[in-house]
Amino acid sequence: MSRKLLVINGPNLNLLGKRKAEHYGSLTLETIEDKLRHTAEDAGLEIAFFQSNHEGEIIDRLHSAMGSVDGIIMNPGAFTHYSVAIRDAIEAIQIPVIEVHLSNIHARESFRHKSVIAPVCIGQIAGLKDYGYYAAVHALNEFLDRDGA
Amino acid sequence: MSRKLLVINGPNLNLLGKRKAEHYGSLTLETIEDKLRHTAEDAGLEIAFFQSNHEGEIIDRLHSAMGSVDGIIMNPGAFTHYSVAIRDAIEAIQIPVIEVHLSNIHARESFRHKSVIAPVCIGQIAGLKDYGYYAAVHALNEFLDRDGA
Amino acid sequence: MSRKLLVINGPNLNLLGKRKAEHYGSLTLETIEDKLRHTAEDAGLEIAFFQSNHEGEIIDRLHSAMGSVDGIIMNPGAFTHYSVAIRDAIEAIQIPVIEVHLSNIHARESFRHKSVIAPVCIGQIAGLKDYGYYAAVHALNEFLDRDGA
Amino acid sequence: MSRKLLVINGPNLNLLGKRKAEHYGSLTLETIEDKLRHTAEDAGLEIAFFQSNHEGEIIDRLHSAMGSVDGIIMNPGAFTHYSVAIRDAIEAIQIPVIEVHLSNIHARESFRHKSVIAPVCIGQIAGLKDYGYYAAVHALNEFLDRDGA
Amino acid sequence: MSRKLLVINGPNLNLLGKRKAEHYGSLTLETIEDKLRHTAEDAGLEIAFFQSNHEGEIIDRLHSAMGSVDGIIMNPGAFTHYSVAIRDAIEAIQIPVIEVHLSNIHARESFRHKSVIAPVCIGQIAGLKDYGYYAAVHALNEFLDRDGA
Amino acid sequence: MSRKLLVINGPNLNLLGKRKAEHYGSLTLETIEDKLRHTAEDAGLEIAFFQSNHEGEIIDRLHSAMGSVDGIIMNPGAFTHYSVAIRDAIEAIQIPVIEVHLSNIHARESFRHKSVIAPVCIGQIAGLKDYGYYAAVHALNEFLDRDGA
Amino acid sequence: MSRKLLVINGPNLNLLGKRKAEHYGSLTLETIEDKLRHTAEDAGLEIAFFQSNHEGEIIDRLHSAMGSVDGIIMNPGAFTHYSVAIRDAIEAIQIPVIEVHLSNIHARESFRHKSVIAPVCIGQIAGLKDYGYYAAVHALNEFLDRDGA
Amino acid sequence: MSRKLLVINGPNLNLLGKRKAEHYGSLTLETIEDKLRHTAEDAGLEIAFFQSNHEGEIIDRLHSAMGSVDGIIMNPGAFTHYSVAIRDAIEAIQIPVIEVHLSNIHARESFRHKSVIAPVCIGQIAGLKDYGYYAAVHALNEFLDRDGA
Amino acid sequence: MSRKLLVINGPNLNLLGKRKAEHYGSLTLETIEDKLRHTAEDAGLEIAFFQSNHEGEIIDRLHSAMGSVDGIIMNPGAFTHYSVAIRDAIEAIQIPVIEVHLSNIHARESFRHKSVIAPVCIGQIAGLKDYGYYAAVHALNEFLDRDGA
Amino acid sequence: MSRKLLVINGPNLNLLGKRKAEHYGSLTLETIEDKLRHTAEDAGLEIAFFQSNHEGEIIDRLHSAMGSVDGIIMNPGAFTHYSVAIRDAIEAIQIPVIEVHLSNIHARESFRHKSVIAPVCIGQIAGLKDYGYYAAVHALNEFLDRDGA
Amino acid sequence: MSRKLLVINGPNLNLLGKRKAEHYGSLTLETIEDKLRHTAEDAGLEIAFFQSNHEGEIIDRLHSAMGSVDGIIMNPGAFTHYSVAIRDAIEAIQIPVIEVHLSNIHARESFRHKSVIAPVCIGQIAGLKDYGYYAAVHALNEFLDRDGA
Amino acid sequence: MSRKLLVINGPNLNLLGKRKAEHYGSLTLETIEDKLRHTAEDAGLEIAFFQSNHEGEIIDRLHSAMGSVDGIIMNPGAFTHYSVAIRDAIEAIQIPVIEVHLSNIHARESFRHKSVIAPVCIGQIAGLKDYGYYAAVHALNEFLDRDGA
Repeated sequence: MSRKLLVINGPNLNLLGKRKAEHYGSLTLETIEDKLRHTAEDAGLEIAFFQSNHEGEIIDRLHSAMGSVDGIIMNPGAFTHYSVAIRDAIEAIQIPVIEVHLSNIHARESFRHKSVIAPVCIGQIAGLKDYGYYAAVHALNEFLDRDGA
Repeated sequence: MSRKLLVINGPNLNLLGKRKAEHYGSLTLETIEDKLRHTAEDAGLEIAFFQSNHEGEIIDRLHSAMGSVDGIIMNPGAFTHYSVAIRDAIEAIQIPVIEVHLSNIHARESFRHKSVIAPVCIGQIAGLKDYGYYAAVHALNEFLDRDGA
Repeated sequence: MSRKLLVINGPNLNLLGKRKAEHYGSLTLETIEDKLRHTAEDAGLEIAFFQSNHEGEIIDRLHSAMGSVDGIIMNPGAFTHYSVAIRDAIEAIQIPVIEVHLSNIHARESFRHKSVIAPVCIGQIAGLKDYGYYAAVHALNEFLDRDGA
Repeated sequence: MSRKLLVINGPNLNLLGKRKAEHYGSLTLETIEDKLRHTAEDAGLEIAFFQSNHEGEIIDRLHSAMGSVDGIIMNPGAFTHYSVAIRDAIEAIQIPVIEVHLSNIHARESFRHKSVIAPVCIGQIAGLKDYGYYAAVHALNEFLDRDGA
Repeated sequence: MSRKLLVINGPNLNLLGKRKAEHYGSLTLETIEDKLRHTAEDAGLEIAFFQSNHEGEIIDRLHSAMGSVDGIIMNPGAFTHYSVAIRDAIEAIQIPVIEVHLSNIHARESFRHKSVIAPVCIGQIAGLKDYGYYAAVHALNEFLDRDGA
Repeated sequence: MSRKLLVINGPNLNLLGKRKAEHYGSLTLETIEDKLRHTAEDAGLEIAFFQSNHEGEIIDRLHSAMGSVDGIIMNPGAFTHYSVAIRDAIEAIQIPVIEVHLSNIHARESFRHKSVIAPVCIGQIAGLKDYGYYAAVHALNEFLDRDGA
Repeated sequence: MSRKLLVINGPNLNLLGKRKAEHYGSLTLETIEDKLRHTAEDAGLEIAFFQSNHEGEIIDRLHSAMGSVDGIIMNPGAFTHYSVAIRDAIEAIQIPVIEVHLSNIHARESFRHKSVIAPVCIGQIAGLKDYGYYAAVHALNEFLDRDGA
Repeated sequence: MSRKLLVINGPNLNLLGKRKAEHYGSLTLETIEDKLRHTAEDAGLEIAFFQSNHEGEIIDRLHSAMGSVDGIIMNPGAFTHYSVAIRDAIEAIQIPVIEVHLSNIHARESFRHKSVIAPVCIGQIAGLKDYGYYAAVHALNEFLDRDGA
Repeated sequence: MSRKLLVINGPNLNLLGKRKAEHYGSLTLETIEDKLRHTAEDAGLEIAFFQSNHEGEIIDRLHSAMGSVDGIIMNPGAFTHYSVAIRDAIEAIQIPVIEVHLSNIHARESFRHKSVIAPVCIGQIAGLKDYGYYAAVHALNEFLDRDGA
Repeated sequence: MSRKLLVINGPNLNLLGKRKAEHYGSLTLETIEDKLRHTAEDAGLEIAFFQSNHEGEIIDRLHSAMGSVDGIIMNPGAFTHYSVAIRDAIEAIQIPVIEVHLSNIHARESFRHKSVIAPVCIGQIAGLKDYGYYAAVHALNEFLDRDGA
Repeated sequence: MSRKLLVINGPNLNLLGKRKAEHYGSLTLETIEDKLRHTAEDAGLEIAFFQSNHEGEIIDRLHSAMGSVDGIIMNPGAFTHYSVAIRDAIEAIQIPVIEVHLSNIHARESFRHKSVIAPVCIGQIAGLKDYGYYAAVHALNEFLDRDGA
Repeated sequence: MSRKLLVINGPNLNLLGKRKAEHYGSLTLETIEDKLRHTAEDAGLEIAFFQSNHEGEIIDRLHSAMGSVDGIIMNPGAFTHYSVAIRDAIEAIQIPVIEVHLSNIHARESFRHKSVIAPVCIGQIAGLKDYGYYAAVHALNEFLDRDGA
């Protein structure tokens, strides 16, 4: 039975391709999800997607992933910087998570340098635009290979 | 075709007139919205209202304003001080926003002096009670006249 | 007519008994609620329960408590540390609240030492595991006896 | 007998229309004062103007307003950020003051986000360009109507 | 043989009932100790009391508790905020301690929000007035039941 | 019946005249107390003295002053900077206190600029050497005249 | 030839007796100056007075004191907290200065606890109301006796 | 002509596989470089390697890359947190750089959360162990495809 | 027509040569101005001088320089550290300014390390005593040569 | 006549060998004092010992050392981090002191990194367990040889 | 025998004229050194040059200057902000140093405002581009004239 | 086979005896190394020495110590305060290190109070001049005896 990945995108990422070009490029979220689906299929993985502007819905989705998902790729958007509740959810469900940011948050406003979520993730990829998501698929797969799952 | 304004009120503002008098006076939100409707009509503007205690619903409403709203008056309530997600939504939709506070947040607890939202707004009005909303209607209209829209 | 208490549990507390043992023990939220029901009944009190991972739903529930609830026991979970919106809701509804934490938040990461909610509560109980909830029932009852309600 | 307002502009505001366009637009102070005079007259108010680059002169002018002025509109310019002496003067004379800024100080350098003066004012209007002054006239009038004066 | 509890009250608590009413109510320490004695007896526990305004005496008393006391309830008073020496004593003697405060220290001056002692205690109860002590008796008993002792 | 003053000197002040000349001059504590006795007698006041290097003894002495002392002059020495327990004692006994320092603490190491005790005193005199004590006698007498006692 | 003292009062102190009672009492500056004149005469001292709301004028007055004044009593008002220029003037003229505050600045807003001027003065008297000025006269005289002048 | 990548590893990374397992796993740097060589070859890229414990040598190597290297993968090791000199070198040579960390620096000591180098890089990959390097190869190639090079 | 320079000296610099030797040497301001006049003449430049202890007068002088002055050398004295008003004036008039300090402000008290004015100047010269002024004349001339003026 | 050393141990050090092994090892204070006595005798030194959990007693003991003790070895325990009173005592008695810590305080909680006492000591030895005391004996003897005493 | 100056340039300054134009202009280091040689010769001074990207080499060069160099002009580049080792070297060799920066570091990122090196230099020149070096030659010469050398 | 110790001295320590006397005394590094050699020989230990002003060389030397050195005495000089790279090297090689400082760094500038290296050492000796090195030899030997090696 193939591994299952879940991709969660946080607030405002549904606007991708419609908002400020300098940070995020012109790709839409749909296009990225399509490319992620192909990447996953090529690697023999199942993949599902979830986007919400609601902190609570993201927490609910993390909870429901328990038992059915092997690894999570999450772009928490602005929640990166203050949602201790999402952090606690990740810590509680004990599924490996990779945090992804399209833009290089370390080169933007100083309040964006700090992630309250990264400390409970495997790692963080920032600034590689949509490629960050594809790299995360391969990295999660590799992580699951090595650490068993 | 007349300009369209949207008034968004954040958490707990539905309790207006029922809560602590020293900061907010005794007007209800409904009364303020009625007076805003008159103010807008007198200025030949359409106006719509939205109130929510849910950060995610406010973000969704900001997104849905794209293409149908010319300017926004927002009292983010307590979200003023931490909702980077609402800030990002405002920045993304590229509709001019004026931030309004009934009380003088600069004279209250120090954590209320800082707004994470104001930097992406046109400006901020604080402490003028409900008059702040009416002033914001005129100011937005003036802004749209000058900058075209 | 008997007094009515409301117990509100915040984000991730629905996972109780399924998550990190070192901080929270192995009790489920259901078991705690059962024991709380017995505690309340023994004291001649009515009691109701609410859990949500959504900040907005917790605010809505606080609002709807006005007029029907005499005292509130709240474990705000991670919202403890940043939800000024919940703080404002508590301050607005003017119902006495006791803040409860299963773990000793003062012995965990430094960002968990500070509660933005405690200043508008009667008091805070931390680290007594589920016993903190039962103590809060008695304390609220005592408070209401003394201060009338 | 009609109410009397006083408009005080602080350091460098005499250069308005001659300085950096991005923050302040191209209006001169004289033009703004003319429009303020019309606004005041239409509202049946008397209005006087004062501009100085000297902190001490502003304090003296505030003192001399006692007994002859009903409300003050003040743009303290750079004094906003450090003149505790002007703050104390406002607190001492007990005349209601509205603080006005042409630019959105909350979107500029971080040292401009903090006002030492706002805590002793009724409120603050920032970022609405010259419209902020006109709104302040109406708001002061409204304030005086409600609170008597 | 019954369990033995020790109740330690720090500086100025001997003045209870004679000092500032808004934080501490009108009960004297003697009355609280009487009620604590009844509470303990009802639970089949022995209980002893100690009050001192001297940091050193409190440390000495903690040391002498080794071998003869099963649990400690401590209101460190002002020492809460700086006595690392008492903290070290608690950590050294390895007897479970619950920290109690009559007033809600989280709602007072900011320097009272931080306890240097709480990190080495089981937990903290603040703001429940004298009820906090009685709750602590039950909580300690419960703790000792669960964790053996 | 004449008014009674109490002079309390904190840690290391017994070494006066034997220690670092640059901050404290060459007077001994005994000489200062003699001069204070004369000053008090000339003003028709009774005066008593207490010196201790023990925080707890100072607190005990403050407590025992209740009912028998009309005003206190205190040089808390190094306790100035951290003894919240002495601060609480002063606040509790409700006897007016003037804080005195021989040296100008505001001109020494930055950790000596802050007094945790001054906020609950009438005022503070620093840097006037022994004259500060004599001035405090007159000031306390004056304070008691004006505010009754 | 008798010693000459200069008393300098900073911004807003001309309003004394006309402003907020809780901090400053009801005495006018004129009354205080009269009492100071008597105090000085009784001690065989000449005394002069200066009040200004202008930082520059105070600096000019300090400069002109060189060669004609033996000691200075200064209440810098709000300049206490930021006027490095006045600090530098005091340091430059090398005349002994005692800083006086009518209210206990250490018990007010935290930004008033810090004086940039005190480090270059002999000492500071705060909170003794007008008595602080009279004490300063005696203290300066004593200082000049001891240190020669 | 094929693109040329340069991989720079900073201080202590030569010890890889010989040092603390919990952060870095058991791979040696040689093994990683071998796998990187294969990854590069598979993608039709040339690749070179450089490791040094000397800040100055890393700067020299960055300078010499000008004109001969199309993209750089750098693990600055401990220099990440303070070498402004390396930051300036990267900014000066104007070759795209991806910062890679084997461990999740955001989950380690707080002084490791901040990178002075990341703000002048394209992005940062942390916590993916050696996979982070391989992902960086693909990401750089992608970046050069998109932005031309 | 020859270029015109203006030299502005801030508070207390009129005392030069009469004040603390360790920081400023024994030259008077008049001597420096004489040497500056010679320096300017030798370089074919006109030069004017202004000194004031009044922040407002310095701002007024900066304003009046518009249209008649090509470059400014300013020693803001203590205003360096807090006068945002002078900073704004410099930014507004758009004349190039070089900030000069006789002493090495970076080696004195830490509050003197920061200049609020330097960010809007061409540059800063500190610690070169009077030579700093002469160097500034040449540097300004050079700057005007290169950037045209 | 032989030199006399005094060894002072602060709060909780009487529990040595009975408390947390990871920081302090299993030696008792008595064993260390025995070994110190031998070390001193071998070096021809007299040695005395003092331990107290009372800050005031330690200050008294420091005072009584004047005139009879040539050097002091002090482990201030938790007082290291806040007892300005002990610091002042050391500074006053002008006897050389070496501060000793059994554990490496620089590797423990951050509040233990800072010593308020070290700045008035000759030096500090931390982390060498009981060996630190013996080294201090030799170092003090050496210090007294070199600097005379 | 003529005086000898040494000019030391730190990391990345060898790239001058090849890097970011906005801060440094288009001059190469070689051109600046040529002009410096002419400046020195005109003043009858010998001059030598050293550039390195290695902190250690700069320290070695400073050491070797002892006995053969009369004054040093140093642009420490990025080392300005953290190399305490270079600071200590300068302090140790006791040769006068002037710190030079081509760009106005006080107008760039806030971490560039602070120099750890300036406190041990005679002074600092920033923002005058290459002219800063020539001015430093004259200033050093002047300094050596006045202070002998 | 005898134990082998390595003594590493960081930047500027080669100047010992030639630099600022107040902190370091007049001994040269060679003399200290001679005395250390005798101390080691007397204790039956081999000892080697290394000094460098280059951070990278110190790291290289630490690496090469693996397998041939049993314990290290290091005076990191100024690197103490910022070289995370040396810290990481010490942590990686897993050889016990004692940090030594000739002067009492806790009594100098505040930036010298903090060591980034001490947390990965056994302990720190500061202020005992050259005696600190000899004590470290004995302490390391003792440490190796107890913990085996």
